[in-house]
Amino acid sequence: MSGAYAERGVFVCFEGGEGSGKSTQARALRDWLETTGHTVRLTFEPGDTPVGVELRRIVLSPETGALADRTEALLYAADKAEHVETLVRPALERGEVVVTDRYVDSTLAYQGAGRSLAVAEVEQVARWATGDLRPHLTVVLDLDPADGLGRFTSRDRIEQESLDFHHRVRQAFLDMAAADPEHYLVVDATRPPAEITDELRRALEPLLVRAVLRERA
Amino acid sequence: MSGAYAERGVFVCFEGGEGSGKSTQARALRDWLETTGHTVRLTFEPGDTPVGVELRRIVLSPETGALADRTEALLYAADKAEHVETLVRPALERGEVVVTDRYVDSTLAYQGAGRSLAVAEVEQVARWATGDLRPHLTVVLDLDPADGLGRFTSRDRIEQESLDFHHRVRQAFLDMAAADPEHYLVVDATRPPAEITDELRRALEPLLVRAVLRERA
Repeated sequence: MSGAYAERGVFVCFEGGEGSGKSTQARALRDWLETTGHTVRLTFEPGDTPVGVELRRIVLSPETGALADRTEALLYAADKAEHVETLVRPALERGEVVVTDRYVDSTLAYQGAGRSLAVAEVEQVARWATGDLRPHLTVVLDLDPADGLGRFTSRDRIEQESLDFHHRVRQAFLDMAAADPEHYLVVDATRPPAEITDELRRALEPLLVRAVLRERA
Repeated sequence: MSGAYAERGVFVCFEGGEGSGKSTQARALRDWLETTGHTVRLTFEPGDTPVGVELRRIVLSPETGALADRTEALLYAADKAEHVETLVRPALERGEVVVTDRYVDSTLAYQGAGRSLAVAEVEQVARWATGDLRPHLTVVLDLDPADGLGRFTSRDRIEQESLDFHHRVRQAFLDMAAADPEHYLVVDATRPPAEITDELRRALEPLLVRAVLRERA
């Protein structure tokens, strides 16, 4: 995979199905990074900007009703464009560690593999939205959808999709990871959270060291 | 220009700057078409679908504040995707005449020529959003921006742009018309409205005849 990797800072992304523990792990990682002296920007998609809040409501609220597949993909892309331009890039340019809960891979997995759109076309739109900025490391928290969805009692528009949809989403994440092992880490999300956090620290350390050395060069 | 033209129905688009009389002319055309027995769907961008209403508010409200250029282009594209998929295509497939107030050319003129984005990239996104559906005829109501904007006392986010921005927008419409004369009609918007309506009727008649003949074939 080609794409642009930020020259300053470290960009880490959590991906995975519903209920896989992404936000718990992102927070644990942030806490550890801060104790080691890094400035961390914890962020998420969709909805971590003012316009993103409105777009998140539109795409996730059951009240929205049906949306054309392209409409949905473009709304997620708009959220990404604002997220990258106003939060992610500025933080990376300041040399910070950006940890995002979901990014382009979620779009590819949910809108591409899950819907009827051609993945290559959805990817082109999402890559344009983000200026093709790629995470230095994407952590896929892998979980059987039946386990993850069981944790919710009320569900939004995406969570209401069939189990088969969520199985296609899971496979899409695993396929992306397999195609670019240098930039992905697949973790069994059923393991104890503290063990997972330990594995993430070990995977991140070389990236953090490289970032610090770049700053000193 | 390549692109897809609907095989049933007639797709007419009005383009032009603020205050050029697009909606007045669109309504006059609708009234005439209905008296001649055509079923007409009068529509507009942005904001003629439920999700479009929300997107229109976001992109035009001064309260939104600054948006990244790509965010804005993607929001307009999402509005287009929903507009084409839920209104324009179904009406054309029923053999109706669709008259839209603004379409892809507005995106190219305002987001492309007006902003700092590469027009070719904005076009690619907008064409994907609309499945590259093209109007059989685009009417450009041409007007000096100083005349058009003078008609407004309160202005939205776009109308607040500089006069120079609106001059670039005007030139962009004229350039698109010049590049594809078969599918464009440029009309001096300062002429009396009834004269303009007459000219539009004459331009549309061959298209309407062709559509009727196709239906009978």
